[in-house]
Amino acid sequence: MPELRKDLFSDIWVVIAPERKLRPQFSNLSGEDFLSPENCPFCEGNESMTPPEIYAIRNNKPNQPEWQLRVVPNKFPALRIEGNLERRGEGFYDKITGIGAHEVVIETNSHTKGIDELENEAITNIFLTFKRRILDLKQDIRFRYIQVFKNHGIRAGATISHPHSQVVGMPVVPARIKERIKTAKAHYDAKERCIFCDIIFHESEHHKRVLFETSDYIVMSPYAPRFPFELAIYPRIHRASFEETGDDGVQKLALVFRDTLRKLNKALEQPAYNLMLHNAPFDNDYKNYFHWHWELVPLISGTGGFELGTYTYINPTPPEEAIDVLKKM
Amino acid sequence: MPELRKDLFSDIWVVIAPERKLRPQFSNLSGEDFLSPENCPFCEGNESMTPPEIYAIRNNKPNQPEWQLRVVPNKFPALRIEGNLERRGEGFYDKITGIGAHEVVIETNSHTKGIDELENEAITNIFLTFKRRILDLKQDIRFRYIQVFKNHGIRAGATISHPHSQVVGMPVVPARIKERIKTAKAHYDAKERCIFCDIIFHESEHHKRVLFETSDYIVMSPYAPRFPFELAIYPRIHRASFEETGDDGVQKLALVFRDTLRKLNKALEQPAYNLMLHNAPFDNDYKNYFHWHWELVPLISGTGGFELGTYTYINPTPPEEAIDVLKKM
Repeated sequence: MPELRKDLFSDIWVVIAPERKLRPQFSNLSGEDFLSPENCPFCEGNESMTPPEIYAIRNNKPNQPEWQLRVVPNKFPALRIEGNLERRGEGFYDKITGIGAHEVVIETNSHTKGIDELENEAITNIFLTFKRRILDLKQDIRFRYIQVFKNHGIRAGATISHPHSQVVGMPVVPARIKERIKTAKAHYDAKERCIFCDIIFHESEHHKRVLFETSDYIVMSPYAPRFPFELAIYPRIHRASFEETGDDGVQKLALVFRDTLRKLNKALEQPAYNLMLHNAPFDNDYKNYFHWHWELVPLISGTGGFELGTYTYINPTPPEEAIDVLKKM
Repeated sequence: MPELRKDLFSDIWVVIAPERKLRPQFSNLSGEDFLSPENCPFCEGNESMTPPEIYAIRNNKPNQPEWQLRVVPNKFPALRIEGNLERRGEGFYDKITGIGAHEVVIETNSHTKGIDELENEAITNIFLTFKRRILDLKQDIRFRYIQVFKNHGIRAGATISHPHSQVVGMPVVPARIKERIKTAKAHYDAKERCIFCDIIFHESEHHKRVLFETSDYIVMSPYAPRFPFELAIYPRIHRASFEETGDDGVQKLALVFRDTLRKLNKALEQPAYNLMLHNAPFDNDYKNYFHWHWELVPLISGTGGFELGTYTYINPTPPEEAIDVLKKM
């Protein structure tokens, strides 16, 4: 059974998940080729290689071929859905039973197509699926946060190449979200304004770090990006939670993401990347000062002991320069 | 000129360092082989390929062959030594001129020998050099912190394979150190005890996460390690700053590190690793509650969007299990 252990010095929780050692990249079956469709658990015809599906976009019965998208439990879950949530001390340390949901969104039946190569409807369905899975999982009162993310490419941490993303229901609010909430709340308490709305207004006015804008979204690089070509997608309308977005708004987001990814792929030659949703947790009411957004980080430079030891990042590409390059794509 | 930009939501500063793009791994000279001694700027005979040395262990004149260890400025510095330190606002963002020191410690004239393969005296000299460089750099009143670290292996972020470590003088206290100080101070204010001394006492008593102990040091895994086989080396004697350690204490540390690395190398087959010093900053008096220590993180598993998006880490190896494995080495 996995457990969550709290770092003594921060809000960081670590998932100690011994089962994860059995994953493809940790196994000794290095002869197995997860790049070939025959062995790929996410390809059509191999539905029996995954646990039974939770959700699918298809016109036939579950767990058989002919589908557009499937959501299945992660076979090697970091957190487990069964069991009681127990928060305990251990000496002067803190731990929680490793309760959570860990789902895989198999984005397409194509083994190789990137999100930006799919039809508009298929891309929209991926983002609509994120919304539906959040709406479903947040009914589980054991969860305080749901993390949606995508690792594209081995360098980004993907162990299976078939296009997929992941949804993790967590019994804690993650450190990075807590950190954002803390600053956003202080800003709101002082000014009665959302700090994210302020960022959008400021960047839209100065335009040095804005890749493009639509009537609903703005795609920009943060002022202090940790990584070269790091981007963020913000909705213009202030809403704390992504899942409050109407289906038409989700569709527009999907196309904004597609256009952003196309530019990145052109400028950086199909880089590995991480895509992450930052959303309001459910343990409290954040509607006044949290503002959902996506982070998109292409992985073209590495990190080392300096970053790990200090949480100070060295970024060789000023965001203004990255935006200049991407705008020409 | 590099600059430091503050993340709006945290204590994280990002070094925007366009000059770093010229580094070997970013250059297009992929034909150049930094693995071969002829092209290696850190090998004997190639002294002219580095900036003039700052410090060396040798019996002859500087910047020529026949030396045991050299310290040179980083040719592609993240921060620059020349210039005035200016702290400025930019709209509602914050920045500082990228002032700092960025030095490389060329640990040995051997192109391939790991630290654990060197003679005792040579290993000791590396750690004594860290102490001397800190004592020298902390006289520069522009600096608030000095980060000593080592990236071993390409996966750990090393761009040159010749054994070396780095020393960075910084005009800010890094987020990870600030975080530790905050908790340590709260603990001290409440209990009048050092939290690190408490950890040492607790772990030494329970012994589940202790690799080995000497009369002066303890090598252990943290309760919530972010990475498999993550280790920490603590001195038993409470001191805020590493550089206060006597030369004999530094020598003992060097041998403790050597023995730790040998075990890791045996258990994990010569892994890439990061070694990082956590030390007291100079902007305040931390003597009561900070306690210097080293972190040693072998890089055997990757991170992805979940870690990047949440600062929640998934570690498949419980620290108790890692210690069991290492103890048998």
